[in-house]
Amino acid sequence: MPVLLPPPHASDVLPVKGVRWGVVQAGVKKVNRKDVSVCALDAGTVVDAVFTQNRFCAAPVRVCQQHIAAGLGVRALAINTGNANAGTGAAGFLHALSMTQTAASALGIKSEQVLPFSTGVILEPLPIDRVNAGIAAACASLQSDAWLDAAIGIMTTDTQPKAVSRQCVIDGHTVTVTGIAKGAGMIRPNMATMLGFVATDAAIAPALMQGLAQRMADQSFNRVTVDGDTSTNDSFVVIATGQAGHQPVTNWAEAPALLEALLAVSQFLAHAIVRDGEGATKFITIRVAGGGNTEEWLKVAYAGAHSPLVKTAFFASDPNLGRILAAIGYAGIADLHVDHVNVHLDDVHVASNGGIHPSYTEASGALVMAKPEITIGIDLGRGSCAETVWTCDFSHDYVTINADYRS
Amino acid sequence: MPVLLPPPHASDVLPVKGVRWGVVQAGVKKVNRKDVSVCALDAGTVVDAVFTQNRFCAAPVRVCQQHIAAGLGVRALAINTGNANAGTGAAGFLHALSMTQTAASALGIKSEQVLPFSTGVILEPLPIDRVNAGIAAACASLQSDAWLDAAIGIMTTDTQPKAVSRQCVIDGHTVTVTGIAKGAGMIRPNMATMLGFVATDAAIAPALMQGLAQRMADQSFNRVTVDGDTSTNDSFVVIATGQAGHQPVTNWAEAPALLEALLAVSQFLAHAIVRDGEGATKFITIRVAGGGNTEEWLKVAYAGAHSPLVKTAFFASDPNLGRILAAIGYAGIADLHVDHVNVHLDDVHVASNGGIHPSYTEASGALVMAKPEITIGIDLGRGSCAETVWTCDFSHDYVTINADYRS
Repeated sequence: MPVLLPPPHASDVLPVKGVRWGVVQAGVKKVNRKDVSVCALDAGTVVDAVFTQNRFCAAPVRVCQQHIAAGLGVRALAINTGNANAGTGAAGFLHALSMTQTAASALGIKSEQVLPFSTGVILEPLPIDRVNAGIAAACASLQSDAWLDAAIGIMTTDTQPKAVSRQCVIDGHTVTVTGIAKGAGMIRPNMATMLGFVATDAAIAPALMQGLAQRMADQSFNRVTVDGDTSTNDSFVVIATGQAGHQPVTNWAEAPALLEALLAVSQFLAHAIVRDGEGATKFITIRVAGGGNTEEWLKVAYAGAHSPLVKTAFFASDPNLGRILAAIGYAGIADLHVDHVNVHLDDVHVASNGGIHPSYTEASGALVMAKPEITIGIDLGRGSCAETVWTCDFSHDYVTINADYRS
Repeated sequence: MPVLLPPPHASDVLPVKGVRWGVVQAGVKKVNRKDVSVCALDAGTVVDAVFTQNRFCAAPVRVCQQHIAAGLGVRALAINTGNANAGTGAAGFLHALSMTQTAASALGIKSEQVLPFSTGVILEPLPIDRVNAGIAAACASLQSDAWLDAAIGIMTTDTQPKAVSRQCVIDGHTVTVTGIAKGAGMIRPNMATMLGFVATDAAIAPALMQGLAQRMADQSFNRVTVDGDTSTNDSFVVIATGQAGHQPVTNWAEAPALLEALLAVSQFLAHAIVRDGEGATKFITIRVAGGGNTEEWLKVAYAGAHSPLVKTAFFASDPNLGRILAAIGYAGIADLHVDHVNVHLDDVHVASNGGIHPSYTEASGALVMAKPEITIGIDLGRGSCAETVWTCDFSHDYVTINADYRS
């Protein structure tokens, strides 16, 4: 059960002009499961993307990078679950290329205009025949209102699909932003989430698109962590079809509501990944203020977010807050003055002057820990930098899910 | 049940001339539990120690550092479990001092000659009256053959005491090295383990003692990790009473067998901590070779040792080895060529050329994964550096133990 994340209804996930999805059951790994999806994009669409920084990046990630560099524009995405096509060597690279060729010939475009994505088990050969059969079938069943199907079609250990829409108005034209994402474990995106796709029918000038995916990821997918494991396949794609009817946006000052909607959609999806984190029972916001620089608060935020002891204490709803202090202490700030550090749990002042805050009581801590959403506020007392990372707790179910994932 | 770690017998844990222990039940946190220990050292003993690098280091650690700096020599250790006296501010510091005063007055020595140690829950006030009553009682019951009692007296979540002895001969004199340690969770020592004490009756020149604890820790306690959490209280003390009868050793070339025995005892204890790691069912050696420099192999070894996905796969005996490749890939070596990386599980060649090794079969991987002791061999193909880190798997019981620790 995800933490405070109601399942999306089809009617809430709005079509985006110029985008169609085909989603099929191809039996990649399991039967009776939607596991191959194709997204077709009308001519004139502009795209920006970011990918994993894992050195063992998967074959499809390398093909995506080459195809984007080819500069012919992106007209389709071809996606499979059930197998990550990672750690698969030269054969894996040819398989990823083959996925793009299959989609290109079905859609009458060039293979360099197709981006391939795979997610699932690493180090196993991709069953390319089943994947390609699925791609051909998906290309034959494209629909504009299949976003929720696509959100379902890219799931692996996710317990529910992740999809959301926002709308805004530009020059009297209604603009839609719709996004889907998948991911629940092996989540510490280092560019983007495992798979995330956000599309808008807004017209965005190509120059303004450049770096947009990075900017959106930095405020969403790059600030969440479930278990600290960065996937080999992380990919995040932003799509603008330009069919909403307004003049192209060339500067964000012209359309602040659009930028806000894009960020809101990616942040919703990033949070959804944490809320549906493997075994998660709590959604935890770690807000670190008073850092001397970005690196400092990142170290502290991630030390807390990755500490198995902090995460199991939250699972137990146990205000064993010394574990948070310990994590701050070992985060790697060599000259940290612990007497200047303040820690809050929601509004409860927990620690100051290197110890327990005088007003803190176990009962007040326990009251916060019992909630499904909790904010840990850490002020390092060293400067004015502040940032936020989102994570979840660490439960029996995380172990169960990951001990059983392949069986 | 620790992994292949038979409980020590009292007869295997040899007394060390010049060292006596008193161990009592003081009810620090729980009743009917040995929880306060005093170690008395004869005059002429030399001592070296290393402590946690956690910035939230506990009050007793700060007192230890001040007392060692005072230079009056160390004549006693006073230790409690049940409370770490960490994150306890100014009151905690006075409590740690008070522990040394109590031991000093009972033993007729100066308080600066006493080192205090605490381990247990962080951020709760130390019940100093019960601790001091325990210290006085322990000082009244000193015995030379109580090492195993002391190993029991310093346990927290350990499931069994950790103690070992080695002997060697120097100039015809038998020399004994005996050590004890505690620790099972919050284990990623960054100087030493939570608590480790190794004593010998060998005579070691004070100049040679300097840095000995660091050298021993670097080859033992600083190479193990259970959950990546560095404790606030890590302390490791090496003691040489000089009563074995030989001339003082002034150079390790004079007594290689002694150095070997000291290293063997600390390595045994460090491994014992991992074997008894909270919830551990497997003892895992990660040997990284071919690193360009020490930092590189450390990054890779700890990425593997801390990955919850790698650790749960070992718990499940599931050769889901892509998780190991993913961890190598995100370890932080920006210019790593994955085609040069080779991975072995014991003798089974798992990965080469960025993918599965041609001879690898799932059955051969499963055979190794089923064992209680496994070596992951990683060759980065970048240089000649090689090092080893020891860790354990990640099981349901880890979550259970740490969700219930305070309740």
